[in-house]
Amino acid sequence: MEYVNMSKAELTAAFEQVKEQFESCKAKNLKLNMARGKPSKMQLDAVSDILMTVQTAEDCVVDGVDTRNYGELSGLKCAKEYWADVLDCKPSQVFVGSTSSLNFMFDVIARAYSHGLLHSQRPWCKEETVKFLCPSPGYDRHFTVTEFFGAELITVPMTATGPDMDMVEELVKDPQVKGIWCVPKYSNPDGIIYSEETVRRFAALKPAAPDFLIMWDNAYCIHEFEGEYVSFPDIISLCEEAGNPDMVCEFASTSKITLAGGGISVMATSEANIAYFTKLFTAQMISYDKVNQLRHVKYLKDKATTIEIMKRHAAILGPKFAVVADMLEKEIKPLGFASWNRPKGGYFVSFNTMPGTAKRALALCKEAGVEMTPAGATYPYGNDPQDSNIRIAPSLPPVAELEQAMDVFCTCIKLAALEKLLEK
Amino acid sequence: MEYVNMSKAELTAAFEQVKEQFESCKAKNLKLNMARGKPSKMQLDAVSDILMTVQTAEDCVVDGVDTRNYGELSGLKCAKEYWADVLDCKPSQVFVGSTSSLNFMFDVIARAYSHGLLHSQRPWCKEETVKFLCPSPGYDRHFTVTEFFGAELITVPMTATGPDMDMVEELVKDPQVKGIWCVPKYSNPDGIIYSEETVRRFAALKPAAPDFLIMWDNAYCIHEFEGEYVSFPDIISLCEEAGNPDMVCEFASTSKITLAGGGISVMATSEANIAYFTKLFTAQMISYDKVNQLRHVKYLKDKATTIEIMKRHAAILGPKFAVVADMLEKEIKPLGFASWNRPKGGYFVSFNTMPGTAKRALALCKEAGVEMTPAGATYPYGNDPQDSNIRIAPSLPPVAELEQAMDVFCTCIKLAALEKLLEK
Repeated sequence: MEYVNMSKAELTAAFEQVKEQFESCKAKNLKLNMARGKPSKMQLDAVSDILMTVQTAEDCVVDGVDTRNYGELSGLKCAKEYWADVLDCKPSQVFVGSTSSLNFMFDVIARAYSHGLLHSQRPWCKEETVKFLCPSPGYDRHFTVTEFFGAELITVPMTATGPDMDMVEELVKDPQVKGIWCVPKYSNPDGIIYSEETVRRFAALKPAAPDFLIMWDNAYCIHEFEGEYVSFPDIISLCEEAGNPDMVCEFASTSKITLAGGGISVMATSEANIAYFTKLFTAQMISYDKVNQLRHVKYLKDKATTIEIMKRHAAILGPKFAVVADMLEKEIKPLGFASWNRPKGGYFVSFNTMPGTAKRALALCKEAGVEMTPAGATYPYGNDPQDSNIRIAPSLPPVAELEQAMDVFCTCIKLAALEKLLEK
Repeated sequence: MEYVNMSKAELTAAFEQVKEQFESCKAKNLKLNMARGKPSKMQLDAVSDILMTVQTAEDCVVDGVDTRNYGELSGLKCAKEYWADVLDCKPSQVFVGSTSSLNFMFDVIARAYSHGLLHSQRPWCKEETVKFLCPSPGYDRHFTVTEFFGAELITVPMTATGPDMDMVEELVKDPQVKGIWCVPKYSNPDGIIYSEETVRRFAALKPAAPDFLIMWDNAYCIHEFEGEYVSFPDIISLCEEAGNPDMVCEFASTSKITLAGGGISVMATSEANIAYFTKLFTAQMISYDKVNQLRHVKYLKDKATTIEIMKRHAAILGPKFAVVADMLEKEIKPLGFASWNRPKGGYFVSFNTMPGTAKRALALCKEAGVEMTPAGATYPYGNDPQDSNIRIAPSLPPVAELEQAMDVFCTCIKLAALEKLLEK
């Protein structure tokens, strides 16, 4: 029976029962982690043969370049071609970087602040106010980057087709609004694929700020764990067609394709932006790790090969997401107070519990030994006004542990809701 | 005979002869490069067995950490222990980073600008003026970093024992002076090892700015190519003893130990600074490449093993520096108008030609197909007021090419000097 239809006596009885379940969870002294989108050991093992692709001095030379030496700041030619294939853009629009796409995004925003972007009238640090749009629920580390540089973060609600574009189109009329964070495919945490209309409306934006920047973090561009690869429009050419060639920087990495702790990242953007950023990045870097770039190109080869490799991850991730979906379906759905998505790719399940109970539920989880992404983290300033959204990251624990963790999670969600309903 | 003792007729005869040599150099259509301190292929080949140290999934786990996954922002425990051994500091004072120590230095200065250092009263971008001391001749990329953020660069002359410390002690009384760039061992380009007195005077500085920062780029800390390893005082403990525990950030990398295009870098500083920077860097990075950190620790092991490995580089570099010294001795010394150093480590020979002729000499080199570090690059703003200092980087070309390049170089140095003397 749904909680909403229960009498006080029924709720009290339910509370006593769930409370008992909670105590028995606690008694297990678990130590489980669903906090971050970390690949599991099985996933890492499935791709560790990448370590064998570059073994000798001879292996290190490609297209006449000795990857072991300095040089090639913007990346190896073959690495640019690889990413252009994956992202469906041109090699000349590609800059290959370090292990971390977050580092790339940070550097772009940091340079916008200290020096300005290609079309900036002044560095952002010289602006009275800089506002940044944050579709939410979203990725906490994105929001942190712009908060770090003092931007005012503006929440834009997510819809089933991406950010609320009516609102985005309205907000960009403010010249202080300088950009927006996007995870366009399998959004973090909702797992939404932006509709083609949403993507086209992004490309056709008419922002008041001449240096408005779409931070297009295509982190899960080929990260299906259920069904076949879903193709996705190239934002760079769409922006160009719409007369906004320099308005977007796209990012991706191999962190969840090969090794999270030893991958390569990419920024793709207009050739004019590539030239501009290359000039700026020359002050900070001699060259990124080209040996590792080559290791990746030899292993991943091209988009088609990479999609095949991604099936190894899918075979491991798919059953974990099924555990989450099945347990929520069985334990929570009949109670009628919560909602969640069922994505086919990405790394998260976005769960909306009874408003006002997310923080409490996760405190209970912690008490019972299950660590989750903090409640609120998916909103700017870590503040979910509804105190409702919770990001579930099922990738790291093995299935048996995940089942235990989800058991604890469901119990805590129920307990927090019942506490609220009973005003405990 | 020295040029200074020649009659005009003798100079004219010398000019005609050197001019002819120059034309015959040009006729060879050379394409040689002594511009950058790049290791040669032979050096890279000598250490490429590092690529074999991490090959399997099992190889990737150390001290219970799976290097393939996210985490350990400040570096692997074993990597910190390795660098602490090399730099003679504590593992708790070590932050292990990306391929490039320049990137670390840039990030430190960038954060000083955007957020301030541990003892800053405000971010440097909020200061009316920031001045930075640049011992010169020095490393152009250092100067560029501080210029990039709008600092006023102040030249401090180099002496045989390091920067002119009387002048440094005087200049730091100005609260706008926020720091100094140093390459304390085998300085770039002079190849000078700072004397112990100089190092102690650095540690004991009493700057007016509470956030004065010594950027201690120990790039050549174990880079002897002649003779045995020369030990060197640990600046971090000396600063601590002198009551300035947070005044220095030390940097180093394996770029010239293993692979220039795929090494690891380090920042060593007080524990308080490590904690402060870790907080700041959390916004920009998930983790650096830990697989590569482990690859390095397995290969280099400790300081003693690394010093043995450095002998492979010395065996290749030593003869190249001998070629430079011998040719300058034979071709230039008798003419009496130039001076240079003869270092036992590092990557450069610092050459001082007749004032007012360095730019011209290097333009002639270029005409004859030999690329050198641009004249002036060793001074702030690329402007050597004497137009005299030239950085020779003999590491990259094989010996036979180096001999050709030095032949061209000596010819061009003479030709530019004779043009000047004859007011051509």
